[in-house]
Amino acid sequence: MIQNDTICAISTPAGVGGIAVIRVSGENAFEICDKIFVAANGNKISDFQANTIHFGKIENQKNIIDEVLVSVFHAPHSFTGENIVEISAHGSLFVQQEILKLLLQNGCRLAQAGEFTQHAFLNGKMDLAQAEAVADLIASTSAAAHRLAMNQMRGGISCELQNLRSELLDFVSLIELELDFSEEDVEFADKKNLIDLSEKICQKLSALTNSFDLGNAVKNGIPVAITGETNVGKSSLLNFLLNEEKAIVSDIHGTTRDIIEDCVNIQGVMFRFIDTAGIRSTENEIEKIGIERALHQIEKAQIVLYVVDSSLFRPQGEIGFCLQGISPFPSAFQVSRNDSNKTILVFNKIDLVDNNKIQIINELYKDFDCPKVFISIKERINTEKLLDEILKAANISQLSENDVIITNIRHRDALQKSLDAIERVISGLQSGIPTDFISQDIRECLHFLGEITGEISTDEILGNIFGKFCIGK
Amino acid sequence: MIQNDTICAISTPAGVGGIAVIRVSGENAFEICDKIFVAANGNKISDFQANTIHFGKIENQKNIIDEVLVSVFHAPHSFTGENIVEISAHGSLFVQQEILKLLLQNGCRLAQAGEFTQHAFLNGKMDLAQAEAVADLIASTSAAAHRLAMNQMRGGISCELQNLRSELLDFVSLIELELDFSEEDVEFADKKNLIDLSEKICQKLSALTNSFDLGNAVKNGIPVAITGETNVGKSSLLNFLLNEEKAIVSDIHGTTRDIIEDCVNIQGVMFRFIDTAGIRSTENEIEKIGIERALHQIEKAQIVLYVVDSSLFRPQGEIGFCLQGISPFPSAFQVSRNDSNKTILVFNKIDLVDNNKIQIINELYKDFDCPKVFISIKERINTEKLLDEILKAANISQLSENDVIITNIRHRDALQKSLDAIERVISGLQSGIPTDFISQDIRECLHFLGEITGEISTDEILGNIFGKFCIGK
Repeated sequence: MIQNDTICAISTPAGVGGIAVIRVSGENAFEICDKIFVAANGNKISDFQANTIHFGKIENQKNIIDEVLVSVFHAPHSFTGENIVEISAHGSLFVQQEILKLLLQNGCRLAQAGEFTQHAFLNGKMDLAQAEAVADLIASTSAAAHRLAMNQMRGGISCELQNLRSELLDFVSLIELELDFSEEDVEFADKKNLIDLSEKICQKLSALTNSFDLGNAVKNGIPVAITGETNVGKSSLLNFLLNEEKAIVSDIHGTTRDIIEDCVNIQGVMFRFIDTAGIRSTENEIEKIGIERALHQIEKAQIVLYVVDSSLFRPQGEIGFCLQGISPFPSAFQVSRNDSNKTILVFNKIDLVDNNKIQIINELYKDFDCPKVFISIKERINTEKLLDEILKAANISQLSENDVIITNIRHRDALQKSLDAIERVISGLQSGIPTDFISQDIRECLHFLGEITGEISTDEILGNIFGKFCIGK
Repeated sequence: MIQNDTICAISTPAGVGGIAVIRVSGENAFEICDKIFVAANGNKISDFQANTIHFGKIENQKNIIDEVLVSVFHAPHSFTGENIVEISAHGSLFVQQEILKLLLQNGCRLAQAGEFTQHAFLNGKMDLAQAEAVADLIASTSAAAHRLAMNQMRGGISCELQNLRSELLDFVSLIELELDFSEEDVEFADKKNLIDLSEKICQKLSALTNSFDLGNAVKNGIPVAITGETNVGKSSLLNFLLNEEKAIVSDIHGTTRDIIEDCVNIQGVMFRFIDTAGIRSTENEIEKIGIERALHQIEKAQIVLYVVDSSLFRPQGEIGFCLQGISPFPSAFQVSRNDSNKTILVFNKIDLVDNNKIQIINELYKDFDCPKVFISIKERINTEKLLDEILKAANISQLSENDVIITNIRHRDALQKSLDAIERVISGLQSGIPTDFISQDIRECLHFLGEITGEISTDEILGNIFGKFCIGK
């Protein structure tokens, strides 16, 4: 990458609107814009004070392209850390293109995807994790995802990692001091303290790594599997949750075979609801595959809605489901029992059941400590309560402003590698292997932590990260 | 309309992008924005100097919605003439909506379509014709349409009308002076001079009114009808011009029955090409309707491309087309002859013809003063020359920067009414009708001219005009 080019791009969303903003950043931003901009007061952009706005015309050989406002930012006090001119033009496609063409003719280069943010990173205005958060922020569609991205952009993760890194650096300098004096057999570092420190770091890294599942769920939608036997109303429930007729609903057992899923934002949290095939013993090969997939989805899901048809419920000697006409099906029930910590038992069709029966069901299930909701999708009874239980199960409200949660798989991988390294450090210290091996493992841990914030980066890493940005950011 | 509301809207195109701009305009713009914006330097927006930019956070009860730049404009030196704050946020849909919601919660009202420009008009920052040009500018998709809109926005038409109005005002004051002294039978205005002035104004109004056809063509695309007998390659020509496979091309005579049309931008001028049914005598009822429509299109078009299959050309005693196997078809030929001033004769399929034949054809048509182009669509021979001839026929290059061309049907209607009034003035002066009738006609003429620039306007007129704008402008 040639960083001393002056780059330009349309930074506002593609299309026609009231205003479009064309951003120019680089050493020659002022000179290039002065060639096409005629200020109403006759002054030059290079003479304008920082952070001021000026009215004028964009001209191409005396042809007026547009009347615009020009905002001027001086290096290093700008987003990219370079001189920036932002041209705020009328949002006509034609005008946007003409201004861009003029800039290119006068010495700008078209910015690549994410290149403004990349310049900000390369000029030390933000670290890599913060830069990545810019893209996450722009892509965020729910309040929870937005909060995580905003926290990361404002340096939450970077700060946490910085602390870990500085502790590790102290650690490694002690160890390496020992190496320098190895012939004299001096011990600068108290082994016990070193092990304690390593274990503390290991715990922190492990917590951060584990936060990925939650972070990723928040970013991409918390997976909620809807399961239960056939014809209990799973597809109706999905349609209710998504507020659309996505799944085909019929009275025929085994209507749903494919995994149907979609995302929906409930009170600021994105959920990914997955309708699964009803679980029953079947000879139909396609349905069998569907059931197998359903079990797999249940395993992966963070929340499981186990739907039961209350109207078919008939108390028997044994606690369990018993369907009229269909034999009890223990394997399905087992599913919810094993995952009771993430299951919500949904007793559907209560419009067909009297209060007496509801009490009996409640009594029978009193030993199950998962939440139980009695609803009727058809009559919209207690559906709000179900949404509350789902939100409660998502456990997002505990996410405080200052929690550091990682949402990026690149960070997870780097953290995992740091974790592996620090675990090798601990076992090395315990087994008393030579200090230089330990030092090497600590250096490796530092390296991977540095990759997250970009203290250590390669063109390939940067290309991967910024290539996913939109152009103009 | 309650003009002292503070209004807000997303002014950038809808969607996700690097930057989104939310515009706030009105008396309380600063106070409202101060409730949600925390400047990095701790200052208040109301303390910021005009035309400056400030970094800070948008907060909702300590939750950070985004880090933004805020641009501040002071009344009356702003687009609307009111206090304006422009919030430049990250272009996430979520962030845009959250900021908008916050503004609404804190006392803003959502701006209606075009309301910012309407405020600019109501506050005397621009007249109505200029305001209308803002919408045209944003919608412009070709250089020519853009130039007309820009000229209008910069006051070209307004200035022309202002001159006419002031001449008329002098005129009417002289006449009305006469009325005041009518009992004394004094003549202040020299009748001869008055007639001369009226005729001059009449000519100018008439020229402006007539410019609508060109202006409208430039704005909406210059209509070019492609005509000729069946199977000469009209649809192939259309596909070439549009650079896509829009029309179905086949060897079967009479393939095209519907009118197929589309716009394409050739060197900055928008053309609307219309493929018509081949003209021949037919018994097929549907084809007959198609031919009738084709003749109608030819009449309306500004340019007619009359396509001939050179390979079928066989010189005969009489000048005219003669198709092998098909009898000559004089009516079609007549079409191009009558409209020879707007016709380009396109001899297609010259890849199948030797030079000798081309010379004979040229010789035969030497009396036709319309342009003749020998091309092969299939082999892309001379197609550039055809484009040049079309551009020449469009006559757009003559459109100088300072030409006043009207493009708006509202203006055309008002001009036509002014024209009718001034014509009544002339005939009144000539026939010597009482001065007070003449004065009334002049007042009417002034009224309609005033409607164009908005000196005279009604809520209904304003509603019609600004309702067509996009929201946020």
